Amino acid sequence: MGALRRKLTRAGLSGLLVTHLPDVRYLCGFTGSSAALAVTRFQARLFTDGRYRSQAEEEVQAADVEISTSAAAIAAVQWIAAQTAVTSVGFDPTTTTVAELARWKDALPARLRRSLLTPLAASLIEPLRRVKSEAELAVMHEAALTGCRLFDHMLSILRPGMPEIEVAAELEHQARLFGAEGMSFETIVAAGKRSALPHGRATANPLPRRGFLTLDFGIILRGYCSDMTRTVFLGSPKAGERSAYQAVLEAQQAAVNQVSAGVRCGDVDEAARNVLRREGFADAFTHSTGHGVGLEIHETPRIGAGQTNRLQAGMVITIEPGIYLPGRFGIRIEDMVAVTRIGAEILTPAPKALIEL
Amino acid sequence: MGALRRKLTRAGLSGLLVTHLPDVRYLCGFTGSSAALAVTRFQARLFTDGRYRSQAEEEVQAADVEISTSAAAIAAVQWIAAQTAVTSVGFDPTTTTVAELARWKDALPARLRRSLLTPLAASLIEPLRRVKSEAELAVMHEAALTGCRLFDHMLSILRPGMPEIEVAAELEHQARLFGAEGMSFETIVAAGKRSALPHGRATANPLPRRGFLTLDFGIILRGYCSDMTRTVFLGSPKAGERSAYQAVLEAQQAAVNQVSAGVRCGDVDEAARNVLRREGFADAFTHSTGHGVGLEIHETPRIGAGQTNRLQAGMVITIEPGIYLPGRFGIRIEDMVAVTRIGAEILTPAPKALIEL
Repeated sequence: MGALRRKLTRAGLSGLLVTHLPDVRYLCGFTGSSAALAVTRFQARLFTDGRYRSQAEEEVQAADVEISTSAAAIAAVQWIAAQTAVTSVGFDPTTTTVAELARWKDALPARLRRSLLTPLAASLIEPLRRVKSEAELAVMHEAALTGCRLFDHMLSILRPGMPEIEVAAELEHQARLFGAEGMSFETIVAAGKRSALPHGRATANPLPRRGFLTLDFGIILRGYCSDMTRTVFLGSPKAGERSAYQAVLEAQQAAVNQVSAGVRCGDVDEAARNVLRREGFADAFTHSTGHGVGLEIHETPRIGAGQTNRLQAGMVITIEPGIYLPGRFGIRIEDMVAVTRIGAEILTPAPKALIEL
Repeated sequence: MGALRRKLTRAGLSGLLVTHLPDVRYLCGFTGSSAALAVTRFQARLFTDGRYRSQAEEEVQAADVEISTSAAAIAAVQWIAAQTAVTSVGFDPTTTTVAELARWKDALPARLRRSLLTPLAASLIEPLRRVKSEAELAVMHEAALTGCRLFDHMLSILRPGMPEIEVAAELEHQARLFGAEGMSFETIVAAGKRSALPHGRATANPLPRRGFLTLDFGIILRGYCSDMTRTVFLGSPKAGERSAYQAVLEAQQAAVNQVSAGVRCGDVDEAARNVLRREGFADAFTHSTGHGVGLEIHETPRIGAGQTNRLQAGMVITIEPGIYLPGRFGIRIEDMVAVTRIGAEILTPAPKALIEL
């Protein structure tokens, strides 16, 4: 909260309205689904409703708690407007809808409607969340290792004929038993020709006797997301399949090797893209190389072509190049890595050499 | 799409920009995670990116498909602005962020920036989605019945000592095996004193030898959500626990009995609230009675105190009164029901008499 207040002051604001739930959780620990946090230079107050009375008392640190009968954000807007010396209140335009803003303004005294609320040019919280603390890194490491244990478990049960949906079911069941609160996104299980769909939802299709199988999944542990992808081969790959896999693996490793504090995100993307270009797969790599991850599955920075912003130590990002050949197959390999001053710490050390099942 | 176009004309608009993904799916069938749909009086065009080329071709009906390299919404805004006779384009301010709107305007020629985009006073799509078609009702019935099968399955395996998180894992695993694409929200498993938390997340706590256990869960089937809650008793309830359960059950049935096309939503809420008031639980019922459900878990209408809008045949709503006595216990009973001209069709016919395990 101290770092946030320094940013507030620097932005010339006397208050901040926080309504994006992962931001609320990050700042004060509250995990309920109805909340708004008002921050001034001297106070912080969390607003929620009656359903969350006990939970808020249990969880919230570094903020007062107020149970309101009106909507949490409206109560927060009215409270912050009533504080002395609060003349300009920032809000995040990327997580505030046009309709919400209109309602907030309606809830203000007429004289404050035009002047009080200020859309932030850039989130004040995102740059804080982007760089993880030691405690956050520890949780994320644990989440990522749990992902690796899951992958290992899956290797022992995958077999031709098993419906993709059962693969997803088994993975998610085991994730729960390993302590996950849930999955960080819809588990991707895509086999055979369907592996060419970058976001193949698990279907009732049985795993083929031979072909690639892509598993892309993540768990949520104490609020933090993990994310990893492995592509394995059912049966025996042909030379072309094997060399395509090698190209993706080499691209993935080139990008990981590029990671280090101070490096431009676009240069990490280019490291992967360069390998795939050389191997003739330039057009088959249809997405960016990775993204930040934390309390949300997609955070900044984006590791994409041309991104000039630089990696910082403590960021956790994914490195996940892939190639997709419609009607034939697809391959993606993804690690979650922590950026350090001298390189990348791989948080998902599951094997990446081509596994034949 | 015909009904939507009539609404467009009536609202005096020549175009509509649809970016809320459940709306996009509802209107044209596309299920990908990056999409914008532009609708004019004569055309409809879906914009998505290269990852979804095959999927869009497979899924999209009643709209052309365009793969764009820029963000889907930007491509849609620019396309619709270029159509002849398109002078005013509606957008949904409740699902459009302040930042998105600013980006859309920036992408327009200067002369159109102030005039083209019009925030809708009310969504044109929500009223369509609120009333389900026969085909939608059939899917939702199947989803709800799958929920009942899940509850039945859980009854056979629940036992004292089982961690709540394992209860959730088992439920979600079985849901997958029953064909669910996923859960429609984070499964609530709250036992003993924790049943007094209306939104108790499953913890590592073991189920107690005696006490209430609330299971609130839903599955997603072909995009549609189910939602149901049952509260059972582990061991033998005392007279006070039994009578509290009876009060909630009676409240729930009173609300269900109130449901019929033409009835005010507030009157359904009042039917439940009235029973709980009479039984001395007025303050313990801390939320509204229910909500619409469909492609999203929370849709309109809200079944809450004072709501004057009226139920329509074909709506699917939840009826879920509950009482929460902090430090003691909580009870909630929830059905998903379809509104008909003469009453309510219960889609979740799992038993509601108190089950002792």
